[in-house]
Amino acid sequence: MPHISLPEGLPGIRGPMLFRPETAKPMNELVDVLLRGPHTLSPGERELIATYVSAENDCRYCQTIHGAIAAHHLGGDEELVLNVKHDFERAEISGKLKALLAIAGKVQLGGKNVTPQDIERARNEGATDLEIHDTVLIAAMFCMCNRYVDGLATWAPNDPEFYRQRAALVATNGYTASTVASTIGTAVK
Amino acid sequence: MPHISLPEGLPGIRGPMLFRPETAKPMNELVDVLLRGPHTLSPGERELIATYVSAENDCRYCQTIHGAIAAHHLGGDEELVLNVKHDFERAEISGKLKALLAIAGKVQLGGKNVTPQDIERARNEGATDLEIHDTVLIAAMFCMCNRYVDGLATWAPNDPEFYRQRAALVATNGYTASTVASTIGTAVK
Repeated sequence: MPHISLPEGLPGIRGPMLFRPETAKPMNELVDVLLRGPHTLSPGERELIATYVSAENDCRYCQTIHGAIAAHHLGGDEELVLNVKHDFERAEISGKLKALLAIAGKVQLGGKNVTPQDIERARNEGATDLEIHDTVLIAAMFCMCNRYVDGLATWAPNDPEFYRQRAALVATNGYTASTVASTIGTAVK
Repeated sequence: MPHISLPEGLPGIRGPMLFRPETAKPMNELVDVLLRGPHTLSPGERELIATYVSAENDCRYCQTIHGAIAAHHLGGDEELVLNVKHDFERAEISGKLKALLAIAGKVQLGGKNVTPQDIERARNEGATDLEIHDTVLIAAMFCMCNRYVDGLATWAPNDPEFYRQRAALVATNGYTASTVASTIGTAVK
């Protein structure tokens, strides 16, 4: 049961977001810019970073929904998402993405864990300043989202199909639009 | 030296924010809503939560600037800010704020650390659902900001007077407006 009275029927971050639309708006905007905005990293790659950090933070809702969105962007490759969560160094992804995931993992532990060697490895793999910046901020943002979701003890569905369907909606329409649509849908019910 | 090439002369979060204004905009909006929006917790109380979490994350820039802003709102009481950072249970603050700081400290460690007992204590001290929600999100947000600031290895001034002057500007104008003003100031230089 959530720690506070949240709108019923909305799992994970969606309950608190409907409870407090004033904070949901900038949060969704930030997620949309970082995960869906024009970029040299694909939406699938950026969702993998979000998924990995959420898994490291042991946030079931976030790692499952962002894992599903990553898989959606990656042609439905759910196995790749699992491989990245379990051991990204051995997953079939680019050397650059591995280096960025290593940075993201350091940020998850605390910002000061990122070393010049971590940055050098990413640069040697061709990472730009913007890619490094956004990796740090994506990792940091999910340290926020994961704590928001679990700090309020929100619930998460068990059915993988729920996440696949939601992932298709978010991948098509974006975070802000999907949250607004959910809110309207709930109000109509 | 920062891990990436950031605009010179801007300490802490302000360098990365000028580097990436697309993400700075929603981040500043979120901070303004949470720390300065209409609320039953005063801006000084909310800044104390931000300061405490930033201290627990050992982020020098964030704990110093938000500590200075908290002190500004609290009539210049810098000693109270230090007392909250060092041992909030013995500081001269309300029982409600102590209970909320205890929740914030749990969130800093990870969302799942928040217990029903932590929530019950806050409710017994008169905390509302909104106050509990915002405490969790303020704590979570600073787990993001602290990692952003330190994950990019930004620099922080040593002079306490720098923070006092900046605090007065932010306390008067807000985060979004102060960031825009700084950007224009930098561009003019």
